[in-house]
Amino acid sequence: MAPESAPTALEMLEALRGPCPRVEPGTVWIVGAGPGDPGLLTLDALAGLLQADAIVHDALIDKRVLAMANPRAQLLFVGKRAGAPSTAQTEITQLLVNLAKEDLRVLRLKGGDPFVFGRGGEEMLALAESGIRFRVISGITAGIGGLASALIPATVRDVNQAVILVTAHAPGDTSGVDWRALAKTGQPLVLYMPTRNLQDISEVLIQAGVNPDMPAAAVASATIEGQQVVESSLMHIAKCMEVLDAASPVLVVIGEIVRVRQRILALLSAHSA
Amino acid sequence: MAPESAPTALEMLEALRGPCPRVEPGTVWIVGAGPGDPGLLTLDALAGLLQADAIVHDALIDKRVLAMANPRAQLLFVGKRAGAPSTAQTEITQLLVNLAKEDLRVLRLKGGDPFVFGRGGEEMLALAESGIRFRVISGITAGIGGLASALIPATVRDVNQAVILVTAHAPGDTSGVDWRALAKTGQPLVLYMPTRNLQDISEVLIQAGVNPDMPAAAVASATIEGQQVVESSLMHIAKCMEVLDAASPVLVVIGEIVRVRQRILALLSAHSA
Repeated sequence: MAPESAPTALEMLEALRGPCPRVEPGTVWIVGAGPGDPGLLTLDALAGLLQADAIVHDALIDKRVLAMANPRAQLLFVGKRAGAPSTAQTEITQLLVNLAKEDLRVLRLKGGDPFVFGRGGEEMLALAESGIRFRVISGITAGIGGLASALIPATVRDVNQAVILVTAHAPGDTSGVDWRALAKTGQPLVLYMPTRNLQDISEVLIQAGVNPDMPAAAVASATIEGQQVVESSLMHIAKCMEVLDAASPVLVVIGEIVRVRQRILALLSAHSA
Repeated sequence: MAPESAPTALEMLEALRGPCPRVEPGTVWIVGAGPGDPGLLTLDALAGLLQADAIVHDALIDKRVLAMANPRAQLLFVGKRAGAPSTAQTEITQLLVNLAKEDLRVLRLKGGDPFVFGRGGEEMLALAESGIRFRVISGITAGIGGLASALIPATVRDVNQAVILVTAHAPGDTSGVDWRALAKTGQPLVLYMPTRNLQDISEVLIQAGVNPDMPAAAVASATIEGQQVVESSLMHIAKCMEVLDAASPVLVVIGEIVRVRQRILALLSAHSA
């Protein structure tokens, strides 16, 4: 390369952060893109985007994240589109295996963290079964990063010593979520994508002894433009969240930690008055 | 600036990712540095490091992360050093306020995620009380990213529908962790820094009905060079983790999800044989 050539994107990244790991041909990186804001992508995720030959991605990946990718990379969409079912997990893992067997540098890019309700574990297992080498690059999970963006810390000293991340399966289904047992822990619950089942879940939690007035909040489109937050109580949160854009990803948090948001907003507004 | 000037670091970062948020003078960014590996830093954290005039940081920040910072930034260490007590939280928040009042661009840099057992919530409140504007930049928490680095996904479909992140306070202390109630949920527990209390916690969990043979693993120095993983059972994990470097940060996970690691390692070793 002539010395006056412009540096490559990867060279610029290495000038900023030091040596990056390399995506070897025939391997797969399983990468989390974080809760939405492209600024919450990791440096290794960016390194992977710059090197990948093929990027297999879900629906919740921001366009600005894909815009950072190697322009020669194939973009393969495997998420849900307009009500159509998403690609079956077995097809996705077969696609990853096939791309790696073509000796490509493969990036599996998932919203949030691939290992928190993201099936990254199944993808690791499927790749290992086929003898495909892989690397995992964690992302910020929405249940923590999305809360912080709404000024709700996942934990507060003297308030909670644990936090429970949970999928919002309906009470009584065969999923194995014991909502009564979760209620008895006294710790905050962060529910992923609870749109349909929240009323039933709230009722079970109240029956199990959680105070109906326990603070609760719902966050839609966390960390990105159009983020919406509604605050209410356990008793009313299911009704209140009907005002949110139903097409957006939503998370709900139930617990005393929600009060931190109220206190911060009150303090900031007192100072700006 | 003359056209032939070398681009600044911030300009290079913007060439890679698009416009970065600006750290305004007199404001504080509360930033998570992730579990250790500098590659798990976020793009916004890097943008903050490049702009900061003052960086107030804890002990668990990798030197390679601090090396990315604006070379003119003051580095202010407020963590624990060699057994000496760490700076009191009230002193840290006062320092942040004072630096912001000097109209500096202030970065509060914490290991992991500032809002998961990191007192970021208290720092937000203290800044709001003083009328200091702030921004939060989440990081990857060790309890999720550190597990993934040990090939243990925080959740696996058909195995668990929730995951519980918990500080490892001793059973029976006044902290309010009800270990029996956590045990009854049937969901995996991820314990932060459990070194001293793990034997007592294990016994309480077994008394509360958790199978003594439940898989358990301890991960030390997660995501960085020298990462160590020991696998055992709930009954034996406290004894087994004595082999780990006692000076390293450690997390412990108890649950069926630990088996994923065993399966992946067996598959990979079968393929490499």
